[in-house]
Amino acid sequence: MFKKILQDIVEESDGYSAVLMGYDGLAVEQYDQPCEAGDLNPFAVEYAHVLKEMKDTLAILNSGEIEEVTVRTERFQVIIRALSEDYFVILTMACNGNYGKGRYLLSREQFRLLEELQ
Amino acid sequence: MFKKILQDIVEESDGYSAVLMGYDGLAVEQYDQPCEAGDLNPFAVEYAHVLKEMKDTLAILNSGEIEEVTVRTERFQVIIRALSEDYFVILTMACNGNYGKGRYLLSREQFRLLEELQ
Repeated sequence: MFKKILQDIVEESDGYSAVLMGYDGLAVEQYDQPCEAGDLNPFAVEYAHVLKEMKDTLAILNSGEIEEVTVRTERFQVIIRALSEDYFVILTMACNGNYGKGRYLLSREQFRLLEELQ
Repeated sequence: MFKKILQDIVEESDGYSAVLMGYDGLAVEQYDQPCEAGDLNPFAVEYAHVLKEMKDTLAILNSGEIEEVTVRTERFQVIIRALSEDYFVILTMACNGNYGKGRYLLSREQFRLLEELQ
């Protein structure tokens, strides 16, 4: 059922790709909209790596758990939402995509994803 | 004059701290509002490190330059805005702070900061 949830997120946000991923960089499930951006998987793996590092350091600095990270580049907007100790979800959108809607959808679907992860 | 710009950003956004920093982790200037969050400098140095790594990898992946990174944890919202090849600015706010206003202020002051950096 992960695929359906990810597909809903991508289609409703008019995004490129949504990936459910572990902090180890392995994707549990992924839904991609065919787009000119090409294969976005290398980005997701890289974000997993950066997020893991950030998570570890912020834990040491007592900053509280990471809830959300967003990255805007010239080409993409990426919203990463932490789901649990082990998993997070990444939504990649066009740089001019509707960021607010993307955030809302990840927040809305967080509980469905968590339920499926049980 | 950096200090005055950073102070404006912190005071108008009701934030905790604004730091102008190089990707090498050295702060050029910093303005802190006295707050219960304590010393935020270790965070800024850590973000510099993560940002540098992200910047290098995204360059390889041809994702375009990083423009903005935001991190929300249980305690803070952090908005990082790239200014140039070498410098960026970090605004730290309370987790329930006005994120939109923080983003707007960084965007508004970007040009003043860049002018000063010349």
